[in-house]
Amino acid sequence: MARRTRTARDRSKRSANTSLSGHIRRSLPFFDVLEEEQIVRLETQVDWIMQDVGIAFRDDPEALQLWQQHGARVEGDIVRAPADWVRDLCAKAPSQFTQLARNAARSVTIGGKHQVFAPIYGAPFVRDLEGGRRYGDIAAFEKRHLDMLLAHMTLSDKPHLGAITEMSRAQDSVDMAEIVFGRKTMDDHCVIMGNVNTNSPLLVDKVVTQAIRVYCGCGQGIVVVPFILSGAMGPVSTAASVAQAMAEAMMVCAYAQLVRPGAPFVLGNFLSSMSLKSGAPTFGMPEPVMSNYAIGQLARRVGLPLRCGGSLTASKIEDAQAAYESTDSMHSTMLAGAHFVLHAAGWLEGGLCTGFEKLVMDADRLGGYQKLLDQGLDTSDEAFARDAYQEVDPGGHFLGSGHTLRHYQSAFYEPRLSDSENVESWEEAGAPDMRTRAHTRWTQLLNEYEPPPIDAGMKEALGAFVAKRKEELPDAWY
Amino acid sequence: MARRTRTARDRSKRSANTSLSGHIRRSLPFFDVLEEEQIVRLETQVDWIMQDVGIAFRDDPEALQLWQQHGARVEGDIVRAPADWVRDLCAKAPSQFTQLARNAARSVTIGGKHQVFAPIYGAPFVRDLEGGRRYGDIAAFEKRHLDMLLAHMTLSDKPHLGAITEMSRAQDSVDMAEIVFGRKTMDDHCVIMGNVNTNSPLLVDKVVTQAIRVYCGCGQGIVVVPFILSGAMGPVSTAASVAQAMAEAMMVCAYAQLVRPGAPFVLGNFLSSMSLKSGAPTFGMPEPVMSNYAIGQLARRVGLPLRCGGSLTASKIEDAQAAYESTDSMHSTMLAGAHFVLHAAGWLEGGLCTGFEKLVMDADRLGGYQKLLDQGLDTSDEAFARDAYQEVDPGGHFLGSGHTLRHYQSAFYEPRLSDSENVESWEEAGAPDMRTRAHTRWTQLLNEYEPPPIDAGMKEALGAFVAKRKEELPDAWY
Repeated sequence: MARRTRTARDRSKRSANTSLSGHIRRSLPFFDVLEEEQIVRLETQVDWIMQDVGIAFRDDPEALQLWQQHGARVEGDIVRAPADWVRDLCAKAPSQFTQLARNAARSVTIGGKHQVFAPIYGAPFVRDLEGGRRYGDIAAFEKRHLDMLLAHMTLSDKPHLGAITEMSRAQDSVDMAEIVFGRKTMDDHCVIMGNVNTNSPLLVDKVVTQAIRVYCGCGQGIVVVPFILSGAMGPVSTAASVAQAMAEAMMVCAYAQLVRPGAPFVLGNFLSSMSLKSGAPTFGMPEPVMSNYAIGQLARRVGLPLRCGGSLTASKIEDAQAAYESTDSMHSTMLAGAHFVLHAAGWLEGGLCTGFEKLVMDADRLGGYQKLLDQGLDTSDEAFARDAYQEVDPGGHFLGSGHTLRHYQSAFYEPRLSDSENVESWEEAGAPDMRTRAHTRWTQLLNEYEPPPIDAGMKEALGAFVAKRKEELPDAWY
Repeated sequence: MARRTRTARDRSKRSANTSLSGHIRRSLPFFDVLEEEQIVRLETQVDWIMQDVGIAFRDDPEALQLWQQHGARVEGDIVRAPADWVRDLCAKAPSQFTQLARNAARSVTIGGKHQVFAPIYGAPFVRDLEGGRRYGDIAAFEKRHLDMLLAHMTLSDKPHLGAITEMSRAQDSVDMAEIVFGRKTMDDHCVIMGNVNTNSPLLVDKVVTQAIRVYCGCGQGIVVVPFILSGAMGPVSTAASVAQAMAEAMMVCAYAQLVRPGAPFVLGNFLSSMSLKSGAPTFGMPEPVMSNYAIGQLARRVGLPLRCGGSLTASKIEDAQAAYESTDSMHSTMLAGAHFVLHAAGWLEGGLCTGFEKLVMDADRLGGYQKLLDQGLDTSDEAFARDAYQEVDPGGHFLGSGHTLRHYQSAFYEPRLSDSENVESWEEAGAPDMRTRAHTRWTQLLNEYEPPPIDAGMKEALGAFVAKRKEELPDAWY
């Protein structure tokens, strides 16, 4: 009886998930899918693209000038460079770095054994079970990069991305970061990052190079992501598309290191397959799964932090399709060792829509991945539980054994949104599907939300900056 | 124009999936998750259980006698044996074998580089979108093992499992197989297998040993599966439960090899985690995912074909929970290299229920896994598409390049049940979720079903056998 009482009390007090920290530090090995010969062939292709095919740096004479100044071969706007030299430049970027958060406990390390999961970014629409699909609250976002940044910096104390679509917006982003962190800190710490796409195939436009000059120029980080729909922005083969993505990102990394040696750089990859019926991008399919595994291994060879994958799906709603596709995508992202995973939660409709239910559903699964990554397989003496075998007879049970009592509270990841009860209990509760439970969960989270503390002077300064810039800026739809 | 016309015609003729054969032959590497030191620690624990703790072989004096006769240490019904000797016996089982099908083109190889996906097995309930949840058509199954076998053997020409719950039913299974394949073939070919659970922890009852004597005794295969809910039928730690499962299955394998050296044996593993709230088994969680990866590596070390995992879920319906859980479970099963995957499609409600929609939904995803396993990453010269880079300018597209035209038809796995169209097209079509599309698909498959050809004499002989046995047998509920 004493035993049973203690058990029940403990159950109500703690959840198994309290053993998970706010950060992931991987102890699980990486899944190295490529043989040495395949790696060499892929790297040869990467080098061929950088050296012989070349990559266009367009509409930005300043970028071409910098390349030329350092001895790259520039013809028109096509830049070609010796692969060894590009690789040497890439080696100047840190293999891991820390992005500071306003709340130091929430700072994240990107690279090495660390993996960071971040929610969906950039979707114009939102969807939830009650309100349906609609534009994100655009009315409040006339100068939306400023509102976005103000919200990130005051309503959350986590690390975040800045704006990139235009050079002045990137500048606003680092200026506002300076209000929060101070110039001195920013000189030798990453406190904000920009996330930019190349214009695949083989084209880098000024959005990318200017963002690099703004972000890297003041020691901040940049994530550069070739988005390749195989067969359209790259050849219709996974190996070729992966190699092309590597070549594009590495050339941009080299450029960033010319702008500022040692600038934090995240090598991105976003490879999608295609529906033969319509040409629509498809997600969670074997080809992008394979590309996650391959790019993970290649990125580790170059020693650069990697962004790839996410909980991606083409489904419009949070149905089984969304979950099948998101999970194959995210399981491979997780095993591949992506260091910075944008779109790890909340993504619907090929990225056009943020799902509120999807956000908490994905997050529930990410906790399981964290446990897998953090803990791997514990093979300590205690894990082998030899004492328990003295207590339990053949055909008996371990429920009451000392080993079980010592460990059951942290033994299992406890998902919040999976219903594992029997069919009778579930029907009695109204037979709710996962979407319904997720709706309850996010509305509860939102009701319980309290803004993190912020220095009053800092908040005021941020508000004043935003007000001033809004007055200066013309309206823009993008 | 000529180009466009050819494209359109080809599209209507073929699907990308025609490049997939009916069999999986893995070219993807295995994910080896354990370091050498961890393997040694796990194997030491396995050996300790077999040598020092021992395993009970209960209610079957004939089994104990065989052990004793070969020099194992038998005390009461506990059998202990030197680990080296057990490992030597296990080495007599083939590392891969072929299970013949009535239609030779459908025979499967189990072990080595081969992976076989089979549907859910043993669920008493069924569910579909129209009919809801109900008992499997029990009225037709008064002597259900006979009806089950007759259905397997006449309505399908694929390999299948036989009955195991009682020795005479196992005997009926091999007797009926003999009608189909003939005694001579069965002497040196596996044509039917039994699938049995040990009574974990550390208990093997007569259902197992008798099934082995019937199946292995006449050269047929046996799948032996410790089902361990960690914390109940094994210690509340993944490492201990995996080691225990290995020890139980290896002891039974050794027994099978004493019965008939060289008998086809599949080492099974079925490890589940538990809800702290209710003690209900949970599926698709990080602990069983980890156990899939670990047991895959251990099974390869012993050289035995492995059964583990499947598309497992505790969800009652085909919602996102079902898909999230099934996919984490099945992705890890696939990467881990399980050779025989029962429950790879159709599983709901912790195995209590077969979902008709779930069956076709899971199967749609299995095609993607097959592509991943079969093809890995193609790094041939042709895959690198160097000629395409001569045709496409920076910022251009590869849609019309020669390389794309040569390969687009087989480049991407084409799922049947994923809707990747834009939200407008999807809404126009009535905004169907994946369940709805799956319902349409299985009803169509069933409408189009035609029984495979069968020799009239064989069919008659099978029917006569069943009729005769039904007369001889008393009714039984199980």
